[in-house]
Amino acid sequence: MKRVKLSHGAGGELMQEFIQQIVSRIELKRTLEGSGLDKLEDSGIINLGDKKIAFTTDSYTVNPIFFPGGDIGKLSVFGTVNDLAVMGAKPLALTLSYIIEEGFSFEHLERITSSVNEASKRVKVPIISGDTKVVEKGKVDKIIINTSGVGMVYKLITNYGARPGDKIIVSGPVGNHGLALLAKRFGFETRLKSDCAPVWDIVDAMIKVGGVHAMKDPTRGGLAACLNELAQKSRVCFLVNEEKIPVEREARSIGEILGIDPLQTACEGRIVACVDASHSKSILEVMGTGASIIGEVKSRPKGRVILQTIVGGKRFLEAPVGELHPRIC
Amino acid sequence: MKRVKLSHGAGGELMQEFIQQIVSRIELKRTLEGSGLDKLEDSGIINLGDKKIAFTTDSYTVNPIFFPGGDIGKLSVFGTVNDLAVMGAKPLALTLSYIIEEGFSFEHLERITSSVNEASKRVKVPIISGDTKVVEKGKVDKIIINTSGVGMVYKLITNYGARPGDKIIVSGPVGNHGLALLAKRFGFETRLKSDCAPVWDIVDAMIKVGGVHAMKDPTRGGLAACLNELAQKSRVCFLVNEEKIPVEREARSIGEILGIDPLQTACEGRIVACVDASHSKSILEVMGTGASIIGEVKSRPKGRVILQTIVGGKRFLEAPVGELHPRIC
Repeated sequence: MKRVKLSHGAGGELMQEFIQQIVSRIELKRTLEGSGLDKLEDSGIINLGDKKIAFTTDSYTVNPIFFPGGDIGKLSVFGTVNDLAVMGAKPLALTLSYIIEEGFSFEHLERITSSVNEASKRVKVPIISGDTKVVEKGKVDKIIINTSGVGMVYKLITNYGARPGDKIIVSGPVGNHGLALLAKRFGFETRLKSDCAPVWDIVDAMIKVGGVHAMKDPTRGGLAACLNELAQKSRVCFLVNEEKIPVEREARSIGEILGIDPLQTACEGRIVACVDASHSKSILEVMGTGASIIGEVKSRPKGRVILQTIVGGKRFLEAPVGELHPRIC
Repeated sequence: MKRVKLSHGAGGELMQEFIQQIVSRIELKRTLEGSGLDKLEDSGIINLGDKKIAFTTDSYTVNPIFFPGGDIGKLSVFGTVNDLAVMGAKPLALTLSYIIEEGFSFEHLERITSSVNEASKRVKVPIISGDTKVVEKGKVDKIIINTSGVGMVYKLITNYGARPGDKIIVSGPVGNHGLALLAKRFGFETRLKSDCAPVWDIVDAMIKVGGVHAMKDPTRGGLAACLNELAQKSRVCFLVNEEKIPVEREARSIGEILGIDPLQTACEGRIVACVDASHSKSILEVMGTGASIIGEVKSRPKGRVILQTIVGGKRFLEAPVGELHPRIC
């Protein structure tokens, strides 16, 4: 009998296939004139007269639940508002669903809820509905949080819009989330923190400049998975200069010790955008320090990412296939 | 150290308190002019110009995942569209989030997804966004599904609107979901099936007649919890005639054998409404067979439900406090 494996959820190519199999069984995938599950984007879009609403969901599991730079509560709020933001939608409201293991401490639950509250205040997005389940010991690991969100589309941005000639921008250093969590798991002394943060303000500023053609936030499959997904969906080639990809020194060191590529591990507060070359400098300016133009969109080979390495060669940058390192989420 | 107990999630009064504690830590609970978490209703409401959007979430765990009359997939779709419907909102779109245990069989996953698909087609509500997580063996029990939903409010109905003089209507026999699942768990031969079904068509017909003041769907705490919540939130008394409460013979028998009160066990396709007395007969007609006027709203004692029993006496019908029977969800 075929069974679901961990690699089916690891953010790489196997996960894409697995999700396609699930999605293919769902016949109603979008509202009239909207877009939905068939596009496999970060949010579905509902058309309401002259308004467009983005609607998204994410269930969060993370180990450890408290980590340098955040916890599962903060992650659940920012993760979901970011899935709206990268579609060009200003987050309007969230729902919050807790699935709690019997025996979980009230103190931890309170810390997590306070963290949800702080994150919700920071992005000024209210939590307007919720759900709480308590399940028997051993039937869930500590706590799982689902947050769903709706947002108002200001300027619809998709994963499909990258065009040859576009510049590729990343908003800040990559891999911090994954590497900070792994460092904590292995008991390393490090100042590295998760990059868990909201991105709407940056997206909003970019939209106001104009010329944003495609956008996505790298999450569990890291920058590599994100670039490959954008290149495939847009049917273009990405030529990326490794030297230009921002990676913090601390992240690089931990990555080297653990044998983990920072480009293939999770971010939680970054965006990758493909923008019109003529707007790229103005866009880079409004994105603040840390942002970097890392490459350019080419027409061929379609769906591939080519990395110009620091040592001078060229190679394909592949999306991770399955599990690459100890699970953090 | 204080720890979360199963009874905190059992649908009774302890759960109400527990949820209040969580909710009290969240400061932003609603959008401008909308209503939200502070009301503890089935959906939050977002005002968008001349339109009102209902937004809700629910995470589903059920044991067994396949049961007489449905499975976790069907439950996840109908449960969430019903949380929109009882607010007077026509369901527009759903999101679907799977949390799957490593090793779960593809065959079961396919059956569940097909069931999600059939349910989505039956209510004509598309699934426009989704999320899939696979977690390590033992870190979740088989599968948990979160569905969130948005709907367009046709006529806002709340839990707070019951008025003295209103008639109390239930849309069909109660307790079938809980008792069918328990019967399966204990290996009883029975034709009893879960009542898992969508309610929007009934709600829509009722709204068209007019005079609907308050509504809620009884779920895990059963009819008793639902009546108590409506009476408390509306600050009125419910006088309910036990003889008029529809309970199927098969449900009553199983309840007697297991020592479980059908009024205190889960429904998944019923609604309770408080309606203007002058409209009650017309409303009852559009609700179809099975619906019954079970009592009347009085002014005092506020927040209490009084049951006129079949044998002739009167007693308070209390909401379940904690765990009443083996867990089914």
